[in-house]
Amino acid sequence: MTSAAPSLPDVSSLAIGILGGSGPQGGGLAVRFALAGHRVLVGSRSAERGRDAAAKLSGAGRLVEGGDNADVAEQADVVIVAVPWEGHGELLADLRKQLAGKIVIDCVNPMGFDKGGAFALPVEEGSAAQQAAAVLPDSTVVGAFHHVSAVLLMDESVASIDTDILVVGDDRPATDTVIALANRIPGMRGIYAGKLRNAGQVEALTANLISVNRRYKAHAGLRVTDV
Amino acid sequence: MTSAAPSLPDVSSLAIGILGGSGPQGGGLAVRFALAGHRVLVGSRSAERGRDAAAKLSGAGRLVEGGDNADVAEQADVVIVAVPWEGHGELLADLRKQLAGKIVIDCVNPMGFDKGGAFALPVEEGSAAQQAAAVLPDSTVVGAFHHVSAVLLMDESVASIDTDILVVGDDRPATDTVIALANRIPGMRGIYAGKLRNAGQVEALTANLISVNRRYKAHAGLRVTDV
Repeated sequence: MTSAAPSLPDVSSLAIGILGGSGPQGGGLAVRFALAGHRVLVGSRSAERGRDAAAKLSGAGRLVEGGDNADVAEQADVVIVAVPWEGHGELLADLRKQLAGKIVIDCVNPMGFDKGGAFALPVEEGSAAQQAAAVLPDSTVVGAFHHVSAVLLMDESVASIDTDILVVGDDRPATDTVIALANRIPGMRGIYAGKLRNAGQVEALTANLISVNRRYKAHAGLRVTDV
Repeated sequence: MTSAAPSLPDVSSLAIGILGGSGPQGGGLAVRFALAGHRVLVGSRSAERGRDAAAKLSGAGRLVEGGDNADVAEQADVVIVAVPWEGHGELLADLRKQLAGKIVIDCVNPMGFDKGGAFALPVEEGSAAQQAAAVLPDSTVVGAFHHVSAVLLMDESVASIDTDILVVGDDRPATDTVIALANRIPGMRGIYAGKLRNAGQVEALTANLISVNRRYKAHAGLRVTDV
């Protein structure tokens, strides 16, 4: 591990925008990155909802700013996509200009639910991350943060999030940046886990972790062994 | 965990058949289950190849028997499918009679390789395990053992295989049996991870673990946290 990660970039000064920051996963990541010392901006469909979400997420030791998704995409250095799968592609296509030249971290899991539990939805492009890459040709898309439990992220009594973050992407500087960002949150560890064409199964595995959570009454995460 | 696994069955007397026992993954599982005290039979296309493989896998503290795939399927109580993806469906369809009434554990990963590394192949039925279920209507198919490193399994200096085994299937007694079997191998822990319709991403994730192995010079496995 030491020899394999010789030069992760210093990401401590990056401003992090979160599209869909009013949802539980986006909100939870906002809290954790703000606690880690980052400037964090959460976006929503309207500026008012974004500011409301930011006010709720701010608290002891952390300030979260809010606005509409376009403002947040424009102001942030790196943007996390935590919006619902429904409308994912259209929302990102509308932000192409604001997201140009930036690393876009997609953590969306295309899933359906029925009586049998959660299941992975087929995605024409192969995965949400690949769909993002298709509609954002001027950005560098990386997949990550798919499996983090929103419940744990939002629970202030949980000091350390005990999970690895599988990071998939085709651009080494971008995946290194996302690995370094994951490492900023206590307990988390970023692990390079392949190219963007292998993002679909990482997203879909969330359905399995939901089954794990139901069976074992857990908030399951993943650790990669031997790394 | 303790309350969630109140009554796993005693599987210690089950005879384990392994189709494709002359390959590295099948051979490695044969060695480990034989060391755990199971009667183990490895099958191959021809009885002679099966017997040759068995002779190579037998050794200190373990006896492995061999034969052709049909013989092995007939004699074993539980059958592990570790054959190449190419020909997987046809091979199983030919063994429908011998596998009737049995638990069939599919650990096959449909993958391709090119200059960019490993990638998941699309499967018409959704996954190798679902394909097995489609051609074996008289058997109970469970997916498991997809991510175990053949290198570690075959390395006698490795006493403990540090990984969880994600077990997917629709039949509770069958998945409990496979969880109990995984627990027989030192270091391994079986974890229920959803229904068979969520097998595809578990199989495909092997492509990501191959990327992890290349990047970090590792033999990566997975642990589920909070369970």
